[in-house]
Amino acid sequence: MREVVFLIQAADRKGLLAEISSFFYNSGFNILQCRQFSDIRAGRYFMRIGLELNGGITRRKLEDSFAEFAAKLDLEYSIHYSESKQNVAILVSKTSHCLYDLLMHADEGDLDCNIPLIISNHPDLEYVADRFNIPFFCCPMKEGKKAEQEAKVLDLLKSHRIDLVILARYMQILSDDFIAHYPQQVINIHHAFLPAFQGGNPYERAWERGVKMIGATAHYATADLDEGPIIEQDVERISHMDMPEDLKHIGKDIERRVLSRAVRFHLEHRVIVSGRRTIVFS
Amino acid sequence: MREVVFLIQAADRKGLLAEISSFFYNSGFNILQCRQFSDIRAGRYFMRIGLELNGGITRRKLEDSFAEFAAKLDLEYSIHYSESKQNVAILVSKTSHCLYDLLMHADEGDLDCNIPLIISNHPDLEYVADRFNIPFFCCPMKEGKKAEQEAKVLDLLKSHRIDLVILARYMQILSDDFIAHYPQQVINIHHAFLPAFQGGNPYERAWERGVKMIGATAHYATADLDEGPIIEQDVERISHMDMPEDLKHIGKDIERRVLSRAVRFHLEHRVIVSGRRTIVFS
Amino acid sequence: MREVVFLIQAADRKGLLAEISSFFYNSGFNILQCRQFSDIRAGRYFMRIGLELNGGITRRKLEDSFAEFAAKLDLEYSIHYSESKQNVAILVSKTSHCLYDLLMHADEGDLDCNIPLIISNHPDLEYVADRFNIPFFCCPMKEGKKAEQEAKVLDLLKSHRIDLVILARYMQILSDDFIAHYPQQVINIHHAFLPAFQGGNPYERAWERGVKMIGATAHYATADLDEGPIIEQDVERISHMDMPEDLKHIGKDIERRVLSRAVRFHLEHRVIVSGRRTIVFS
Amino acid sequence: MREVVFLIQAADRKGLLAEISSFFYNSGFNILQCRQFSDIRAGRYFMRIGLELNGGITRRKLEDSFAEFAAKLDLEYSIHYSESKQNVAILVSKTSHCLYDLLMHADEGDLDCNIPLIISNHPDLEYVADRFNIPFFCCPMKEGKKAEQEAKVLDLLKSHRIDLVILARYMQILSDDFIAHYPQQVINIHHAFLPAFQGGNPYERAWERGVKMIGATAHYATADLDEGPIIEQDVERISHMDMPEDLKHIGKDIERRVLSRAVRFHLEHRVIVSGRRTIVFS
Repeated sequence: MREVVFLIQAADRKGLLAEISSFFYNSGFNILQCRQFSDIRAGRYFMRIGLELNGGITRRKLEDSFAEFAAKLDLEYSIHYSESKQNVAILVSKTSHCLYDLLMHADEGDLDCNIPLIISNHPDLEYVADRFNIPFFCCPMKEGKKAEQEAKVLDLLKSHRIDLVILARYMQILSDDFIAHYPQQVINIHHAFLPAFQGGNPYERAWERGVKMIGATAHYATADLDEGPIIEQDVERISHMDMPEDLKHIGKDIERRVLSRAVRFHLEHRVIVSGRRTIVFS
Repeated sequence: MREVVFLIQAADRKGLLAEISSFFYNSGFNILQCRQFSDIRAGRYFMRIGLELNGGITRRKLEDSFAEFAAKLDLEYSIHYSESKQNVAILVSKTSHCLYDLLMHADEGDLDCNIPLIISNHPDLEYVADRFNIPFFCCPMKEGKKAEQEAKVLDLLKSHRIDLVILARYMQILSDDFIAHYPQQVINIHHAFLPAFQGGNPYERAWERGVKMIGATAHYATADLDEGPIIEQDVERISHMDMPEDLKHIGKDIERRVLSRAVRFHLEHRVIVSGRRTIVFS
Repeated sequence: MREVVFLIQAADRKGLLAEISSFFYNSGFNILQCRQFSDIRAGRYFMRIGLELNGGITRRKLEDSFAEFAAKLDLEYSIHYSESKQNVAILVSKTSHCLYDLLMHADEGDLDCNIPLIISNHPDLEYVADRFNIPFFCCPMKEGKKAEQEAKVLDLLKSHRIDLVILARYMQILSDDFIAHYPQQVINIHHAFLPAFQGGNPYERAWERGVKMIGATAHYATADLDEGPIIEQDVERISHMDMPEDLKHIGKDIERRVLSRAVRFHLEHRVIVSGRRTIVFS
Repeated sequence: MREVVFLIQAADRKGLLAEISSFFYNSGFNILQCRQFSDIRAGRYFMRIGLELNGGITRRKLEDSFAEFAAKLDLEYSIHYSESKQNVAILVSKTSHCLYDLLMHADEGDLDCNIPLIISNHPDLEYVADRFNIPFFCCPMKEGKKAEQEAKVLDLLKSHRIDLVILARYMQILSDDFIAHYPQQVINIHHAFLPAFQGGNPYERAWERGVKMIGATAHYATADLDEGPIIEQDVERISHMDMPEDLKHIGKDIERRVLSRAVRFHLEHRVIVSGRRTIVFS
């Protein structure tokens, strides 16, 4: 079945649900799912609506008629067709656990996307890319050459028409300029339960602080490091017996599942960003 | 703010969301929340819609106009006004943990209800009722006199206009006849993760089986013991060090939180029963 | 059965387990439980050993012989007899949820202690104390009179021979001087997953940051606010639908269970403090 | 560092800890970890003790002297050397998720073992084996030829000196005779929270029953299907929105992590079987 998803937000006001659902109903669509949420604090309204795309209407006609309707109601929106698979680039450094997990999920059909390339600043993980027959590009980071390296990466992303960039433990801070090319299209995994332990060495610091649980956070990358809108988090219980090395080990499993869930939510168009917060229609 | 909640179900078909939301919008209501769900297996549609009750319309007028509308669309529904507090009876035997937890939550305003009475087949917990100034009725169960005892309990429930009966570790099996007076209005807590360990001594049996987690289940009571529609479940990790007595101890906390969550979902009109399953708009 | 628990720590070295367990075995004791842990980073050894106290030996004789043995091995230790119930004071301000939960657990025999008094800086919760027949003392905090108020509270604690002070949402920062009277004997509950959201208004700040889980932390109070050794933490999943008020509501249940678990660990002599970290033989 | 682990069990009695730890101390060993547990119901004592293997003693001498000691104390035990990597065979059918996860964990060094072969009754997953350069053997199951097929599988296991067999969603029931060759050396993953939903189609049945959480169970395979000693379990929350297909999807992640944890516990010699129960020194 062909499906189209609309992600909509607007200033909240009476009647939005009735008006939007009536628009689609009167246009002859079958509404497959509809989730909505009024943020009474922010006075914003959010909706995710999934429709069956039947043969009777072209994309162009649908988009034009909705654009006209949305203009009247002052809606912000984006439209996503199930038949258009997204292109995903995975950026890594030297640790393979998140990369493996993403490739495995994609291979099993649990992440609906193409992965046309893997990019790294180190050559170490080329063998993993090889195992899954995915082109691997090594773009080393040389001192004082950050801009050049980023330009090379951007070229690769553009030439592969990438829709989503996943930082799967890519140990580089992206420049604001880089991020600006992919607003809300770069997902990072941080190996701590943000906002606790922002920055480096979170497992070491978690051990020193003596916390009883550790976590991981997937968020959209923004200009402020570790401050982007959070998509997904999870934690696991630890004990005094766990040394920093054990936390790293336990944390790998948390990172894996948090990142792959966040990527799935994004690929299925379940996430709307609102300031520093996300609405996730999971 | 005065609020009214409609719980609606119907055979699934195109346009229900648009038609129902338009009905309320055109009638001048502000929709506070709307949650819906299409069970594609069962071909059923479920909706919970919360409206602001403004001064301009009487209950009678609202109910009449919706009845007419619902008849046309073949909707099953129930209407719930926030200003009408529900009357809740708690039935207990000898263990106090669920009783205490419910009374504590009610006292703190976390369960929106009146608790006009507590009924037990034993006198042991009268002191708990006294502490919260709630009338306590002891209806002992004598051999061969189940029908009489149930009749007495039913009399108490009816005379106190009870809307919801909570079996907070009431160690008696209610007759079909009793249940029939309160369809989907009796919530039981079973001290196991159903369908595992149905029936008696679940902690002992969980220990013998060597499970690594134990749980609790809150469900509507039906004629079939432990087979009613499940509202809420939870579990906790245990280890080989935990003897059956420890499981009982750990389980108390699970039972408490599962039962109080289920009761809150029910009191807030978040639960729709569909066969053996529940839709919980939590 | 009478039981005695030894909490022991020492610089780690070969043979401690054999020597200590042999000491007790040769002294004729039955070892009921023995848990131990070598912190290889800190080079410290920790042990909790529980013995059956049989009739044949006096406390005095046991303590003297162990003191001599411990001096030779350079052990730090404390001795705890099951027959000596600890005296616990609960300090509260205006919110009752943690107080109720502790009283309920104590009433059901799940916290093995006496609670001879409840102290508050506000009169609001006297009725809760009354329900459980526990003396309630109101020590209001007047501007510029913190020292006097703390002196009054300390007097109450001393005159009731208090072993453990529980800050059950007591919204006052204790002075270093106060804390110094009860080292590792004051347990505080912070309504956030430390070290995230230290300080005030954690639920509001958690909402603003858009986290996907919230938590609570029980820790020993030290001179540094929210920096004391953590005993227990837990979290719960939230969603974009939860406003700060909802977080407060959800958080109450987390706070309750985290605090009562931490208090139980302490009362059962399962916690050893080592710098900023705790060893919890749970 | 070379390490040796002793797994010990015996009828419980006074002095075992002191005697055993003294034996190793007096023999000049450094005890790295020691975990123990007295099952007061069963009257059994269990111990896992890890020693540093220094140069001064041969395996033979250690084993002989311990055998003599153990005979006097009537200990059952097994000895495991860290330098001897175990050989693991993975048996699969058509679904790849558990296989991938095990291979990935092994590849990252998180499962300390060799995987010399993968066996399947279907050819479908050969490409996964190829990706990780592991020999793949297809042993199809033909009607009425179960004994022949099992004989072929046994031959492969024997000729590869397999220490542990993992049934990673191998959709065949092994005969008692097969199991008898590998007592407590075959780990199965069942896609339900046992004892709930034993047997086939657990996700479908979980959906029909309307449970609010689903789980997975890793256990040693025994003659009784799904009745073997449980090593590890976990669950995840679901909602009314999840159809049986969604449960399958969610369940895959639970199965993965439960199976890989159980395998790790086994490979690290953390599991002792006692009747239908396991002691897991995790």
